[in-house]
Amino acid sequence: MTAHDYWLAMSRGAKIVELDRAESLRLLAAKKVGRLAFVHDGAPTVMPMNFTLAGDRIVFRTLAHGSGARAVDNPVAFEVDDIDDFLEAGWSVVVNGTAELLTEEELNQLREHAPEPWAEGPRTLFIAIPMDQVSGRQLVPR
Amino acid sequence: MTAHDYWLAMSRGAKIVELDRAESLRLLAAKKVGRLAFVHDGAPTVMPMNFTLAGDRIVFRTLAHGSGARAVDNPVAFEVDDIDDFLEAGWSVVVNGTAELLTEEELNQLREHAPEPWAEGPRTLFIAIPMDQVSGRQLVPR
Repeated sequence: MTAHDYWLAMSRGAKIVELDRAESLRLLAAKKVGRLAFVHDGAPTVMPMNFTLAGDRIVFRTLAHGSGARAVDNPVAFEVDDIDDFLEAGWSVVVNGTAELLTEEELNQLREHAPEPWAEGPRTLFIAIPMDQVSGRQLVPR
Repeated sequence: MTAHDYWLAMSRGAKIVELDRAESLRLLAAKKVGRLAFVHDGAPTVMPMNFTLAGDRIVFRTLAHGSGARAVDNPVAFEVDDIDDFLEAGWSVVVNGTAELLTEEELNQLREHAPEPWAEGPRTLFIAIPMDQVSGRQLVPR
């Protein structure tokens, strides 16, 4: 048995369970920070963002001239997870969609759902991601 | 003051501190799972992966016919973070590079650095990301 064969054989074998939409949204709603991914010059960019849920959309804020602003009108993925390094278990929910700028009217309707950025700086862009495409997976130890 | 002005004014004001390479690598090494992002059909895909560090590369394993295999020979971002929802603080380290398939020889040299996938399935692809481009940021509450 070569080292190759040996390592190929090794796996902790935790089960991957697909989560339905309701469960995925429930998990998503319990978190405050997700990771925004978008494409810039053909390469992926990932950055954590604190967010809120408003209606059927994820909402977050970013700097008008920061790199996060590049997500607007582009396809994005927003990933939220909870991983237990000790149990080697966890879940991950990903929302795929197109990031859109909130209109002034939508912004005024946010009220208690408006996100307050944790990070300093004039984060004047309010960006939303529709939760049409939501997928969730859970890793259940054997 | 409109609701718009009100929310624009609100921010928790935590300081963003750029981390140097040494500190970023130290934080990265303390974690077992990161989020792999790559581009497929022009849109970003994000998935958690447990990983190891081998030399100057991140190594993880995936299914030969799974979606993670699409990362090979493509630009990727690998994000690792630790967020404290209560303190509204945390850090994030991102490695940008091109994912490459390990050769049989490289694979045999991995030894104790070989990753063991937490998830079930024949994860026979060993994929590496060079840690040439590493950036890190920390969010320090005011």
